[in-house]
Amino acid sequence: MDTTQLRIETGGRHVLDLTDRAAAFAAQAGGDGLLHVFVPHATAGLAVMETGSGSEEDLEEVLDRLLPRDDRWAHRHGSRGHGADHLLPVFAGPSLTVPVQAGRLLLGTWQRIVLVDLNDDNPRRQVRLSFLHG
Amino acid sequence: MDTTQLRIETGGRHVLDLTDRAAAFAAQAGGDGLLHVFVPHATAGLAVMETGSGSEEDLEEVLDRLLPRDDRWAHRHGSRGHGADHLLPVFAGPSLTVPVQAGRLLLGTWQRIVLVDLNDDNPRRQVRLSFLHG
Amino acid sequence: MDTTQLRIETGGRHVLDLTDRAAAFAAQAGGDGLLHVFVPHATAGLAVMETGSGSEEDLEEVLDRLLPRDDRWAHRHGSRGHGADHLLPVFAGPSLTVPVQAGRLLLGTWQRIVLVDLNDDNPRRQVRLSFLHG
Repeated sequence: MDTTQLRIETGGRHVLDLTDRAAAFAAQAGGDGLLHVFVPHATAGLAVMETGSGSEEDLEEVLDRLLPRDDRWAHRHGSRGHGADHLLPVFAGPSLTVPVQAGRLLLGTWQRIVLVDLNDDNPRRQVRLSFLHG
Repeated sequence: MDTTQLRIETGGRHVLDLTDRAAAFAAQAGGDGLLHVFVPHATAGLAVMETGSGSEEDLEEVLDRLLPRDDRWAHRHGSRGHGADHLLPVFAGPSLTVPVQAGRLLLGTWQRIVLVDLNDDNPRRQVRLSFLHG
Repeated sequence: MDTTQLRIETGGRHVLDLTDRAAAFAAQAGGDGLLHVFVPHATAGLAVMETGSGSEEDLEEVLDRLLPRDDRWAHRHGSRGHGADHLLPVFAGPSLTVPVQAGRLLLGTWQRIVLVDLNDDNPRRQVRLSFLHG
């Protein structure tokens, strides 16, 4: 198993495309297998979605409805609404696996691997990539 | 690692049971390991749920509330409400792994692996199965 | 691949922390690899979240809004609102994978692996752990 850790500066962005870095890692590992992506943070998650066509903005609208940044939350650490951040990973989980063939991620044409992170209080994130050879 | 690709004609169905085909693949691969299921499409996802007792219809009701097919979406390609389809995989993700023992999927009695696909514009889908021997 | 099955008595609790038992299993298996967690039940799921700071209660509030325990459900087996339980795993899925290094789960500081189970009618649950050596 090959493994590496990506360092990410979110810079306040809420949907960050990790695909190119994941693809480069898989290409370097080479061969067939499964790429595992893992986010070791309690207030960020992963998704696979199209980017660059408005869906990032749409995702924020849905998450604002599902997890409103108001005072309802029993979790009261951090800034207002931060309790919402702690529920994001229940929906956009921290773990994702993608098949790889000859070092190439077998994603669909419009699929991108993204980090979803609404928590502006923590701009430094890490993502662990593991390549399991088949 | 053994791998195969299922071809699926959705025929307008929104919840399609893949369990029998996944079980047949695992039985053929044989032995112990993990079955990985992956949907290479940006507007479809996977779930594990009971089928045949009304939950398919219930799932559509929940998704209609969470991701209404109206004009709110910034993503504006395709037919009305298609932006909703692009958020489905954030919730019902494209990747799923099931343990296998002696070629048998270790699903619970009522668990079925289903493709969730509300996108009627694209009736031809593929699903990749990978068997990782343990 | 090492594997084991946890037996869990929920005792009516809806969010149960599995982390210590998962960590003990990974430590015993030892080495580097991936820990796979799987719930073989159609009305329970997994999540990774902080525990002990109110988020369990917050999760119940969100799930009550998303999947209300009322009479809307087409699935009508079991007690009132049980149809909601059958949709939980679409969101909090039954499958989760965590990287392991030298027998140690590479979870973030506040990340805990939890069983989410709103179904009080079935207090005995099982969770399968599989360790795939890298």
